[in-house]
Amino acid sequence: MQRKLPIIAINGVVDKQVSPLDRGFTYGDGVFETCCMVNAKIPLWRFHRERLIDSCDALLIPIQINIVEQYLQQLIEQVQSTELTNAVVKIIVTRGEGGRGYRLPDVINPTICIGVFPAAVYPEDYNNRGVTVRVCNQQLGSNTSLAGLKHLNRLEHILARAEWRDENIAEGLLLDTNGNLIEATVSNIFIVKDGSLLTPDLTQSGVAGVMRRFIMESVASQLNVEPVIKKLTLDDLYSADEVFLCNSVFGVWPVVQVVGEPACKFPVGKITSQLQQLLIKALNALS
Amino acid sequence: MQRKLPIIAINGVVDKQVSPLDRGFTYGDGVFETCCMVNAKIPLWRFHRERLIDSCDALLIPIQINIVEQYLQQLIEQVQSTELTNAVVKIIVTRGEGGRGYRLPDVINPTICIGVFPAAVYPEDYNNRGVTVRVCNQQLGSNTSLAGLKHLNRLEHILARAEWRDENIAEGLLLDTNGNLIEATVSNIFIVKDGSLLTPDLTQSGVAGVMRRFIMESVASQLNVEPVIKKLTLDDLYSADEVFLCNSVFGVWPVVQVVGEPACKFPVGKITSQLQQLLIKALNALS
Repeated sequence: MQRKLPIIAINGVVDKQVSPLDRGFTYGDGVFETCCMVNAKIPLWRFHRERLIDSCDALLIPIQINIVEQYLQQLIEQVQSTELTNAVVKIIVTRGEGGRGYRLPDVINPTICIGVFPAAVYPEDYNNRGVTVRVCNQQLGSNTSLAGLKHLNRLEHILARAEWRDENIAEGLLLDTNGNLIEATVSNIFIVKDGSLLTPDLTQSGVAGVMRRFIMESVASQLNVEPVIKKLTLDDLYSADEVFLCNSVFGVWPVVQVVGEPACKFPVGKITSQLQQLLIKALNALS
Repeated sequence: MQRKLPIIAINGVVDKQVSPLDRGFTYGDGVFETCCMVNAKIPLWRFHRERLIDSCDALLIPIQINIVEQYLQQLIEQVQSTELTNAVVKIIVTRGEGGRGYRLPDVINPTICIGVFPAAVYPEDYNNRGVTVRVCNQQLGSNTSLAGLKHLNRLEHILARAEWRDENIAEGLLLDTNGNLIEATVSNIFIVKDGSLLTPDLTQSGVAGVMRRFIMESVASQLNVEPVIKKLTLDDLYSADEVFLCNSVFGVWPVVQVVGEPACKFPVGKITSQLQQLLIKALNALS
């Protein structure tokens, strides 16, 4: 198939559209994964797969992961291999069609929407020289039953991202309504302080990113630092030695400046740089 | 057009489907209205219209309300008049198609989805003898920028509604994470105490229902009670003289029992019954 990306398939059928009764459309009733593809493979698929299963379980969506993997494989075979050298694969799973109310349908036939998108393009400097970020006014509500999930209810993140248009600001940091630092709009945050690697607790709000997990489980140990999940505030951020953001698509961005009040700056830190090197090796080993 | 309801049009075209890039589908990025239709008219349209405009404003969706009204009128003309004697009209407005990220598209062409559904069928006893409700375990997160809006991020309400299947329980009451009574899954709540009509403050969470507003602005005054918006807890509920639920579709349901711990019962109260009579008159005057 020689055509421009994105190429999107619904339940295995390319160019199919979505029913207006699909609960993804009517209520944001579903979850998604955004995966980095390299040479037709998704290095972190094991983690995306697990989160997809866990998120669907939490939302009572009866997903059959082998069907998702079958549709994914079919789509890969339909897209030109040159397009798959570097691409982003987005997988949406919704509860499928329903009636007019919130009540779960008696029979749930999930909608599985898989799209292959062009690779994300960011300035290369972001990885090397780091990024400038801001603190968003938009706050995240707390809800233990939705926290951590990459669900389709994303209005808070959309309103946060709508707060700035300055191209020099790469990301926006998000606090919850109690002032805890949680994440950034499309990435998770780590801070380095006195040799410790700290990342916010996501049991009340936020998205538990795949790259965050990969760093904590598979990369940090090679640095001889124990990652610690804890409540963090802006004070913790401002007094950090190093700060970085991560997600599955861009990897790790050092944060070198937080604009605003008080404005503060960080170096591209030693631990962050070492972690970036280790991460590249670890991902290459999976590709 | 002689066919079974629902009949749904997207941007004025019946049976059209939704793009998988529609931000309603990808992020729940939109709002909706559920309107009661009587003889091809929506008695409370003025209120739905205002909320639709206000909600779109809050979410930065550039809605043209005259286009919505034009599509609505077109659809009404396409549906058999017998189907419109009693129907439910659902209007969804999303931010339209977008790219892969949260960032607002440079050009926003909202999707306007209007569906005519069969009238909701509830036991008639619900209006007369009242309903039994439960208190949901699912809590509502707080977010001042989304509170009150009837937006498409409805996972909390879906998980709440999934908590029970007992057909004898008509509704589920929702608290926020601080224990404040907010609403029910598809309706707002009022309590009567010592002659006062109280309803929860919705500045932190919940949906500000059209029927709630109509009762407060146009009906309560005829009862010589001043409606009061305030923070309410389960203690306020349990010590109430009368309790009722309301929405645009079913009108007013007296609450006669809250199951659970502690179980408690209420009469179908005098003020609730008077309000129901006044409401029917007020709605008839608008039909």
